[in-house]
Amino acid sequence: MTGDEQAIRRLVADWMAGVRDGDAGKVLDLIDDDALFLTTGSKPFGKDAFRAHSSEQRDTRIEPVNNIEEIEIAGNWAYMRSSLRVTVTPSSGKPVQRSGHTLTILRKGSDGRWRVFRDANLLTVEDQG
Amino acid sequence: MTGDEQAIRRLVADWMAGVRDGDAGKVLDLIDDDALFLTTGSKPFGKDAFRAHSSEQRDTRIEPVNNIEEIEIAGNWAYMRSSLRVTVTPSSGKPVQRSGHTLTILRKGSDGRWRVFRDANLLTVEDQG
Repeated sequence: MTGDEQAIRRLVADWMAGVRDGDAGKVLDLIDDDALFLTTGSKPFGKDAFRAHSSEQRDTRIEPVNNIEEIEIAGNWAYMRSSLRVTVTPSSGKPVQRSGHTLTILRKGSDGRWRVFRDANLLTVEDQG
Repeated sequence: MTGDEQAIRRLVADWMAGVRDGDAGKVLDLIDDDALFLTTGSKPFGKDAFRAHSSEQRDTRIEPVNNIEEIEIAGNWAYMRSSLRVTVTPSSGKPVQRSGHTLTILRKGSDGRWRVFRDANLLTVEDQG
């Protein structure tokens, strides 16, 4: 495994820990300033909207379980395919499970650090049946 | 614009023409044998499943309108972000509009041709209201 791949795997582990701990600052530090997030049913949004959304979810417990299925690196660019299952528990309310795949583009900055640059999130709410 | 970017834009134009004309062979020729398609609510599927799905849709009219929002090339790899609106009209039934974004990974083969390698499709059915 190359140093770049190790760095990307560490980024993912840090991201998941940040989400679990409700540490928005830790997660935001892993996001490129020019990042765009693609989801279903809404327009792509950037880091500022991600920050605002994280702030709104302060009182929500979010438990992700992530599996990296593929990482491909080309110079200062990489893509990663993952499966992801997230349990979201609002401060008052039942937990909801969302699961599916993500396709992520990462960019290595001039400081040598990898950050998330594009992220397509295909997760859907699981049937509660 | 580089030759690689021109080739990728031509691939997209050929893809859209193939879809519009119901020419599955033309579209399949633009797909890497190891491609994976990521959609919401189902597992990633490969070229064989794509072929089978195209065959099932033989009698369906599909009219895509595509806008390439970004292409980034790194050696033999590229990613592309697009917005897409598709009107799907079954042989008997009303047209349905699906719209949203796609994030696509393309790979240049040893024959120098670009093909679709990963495709995350975030389209959702538009409200009919």
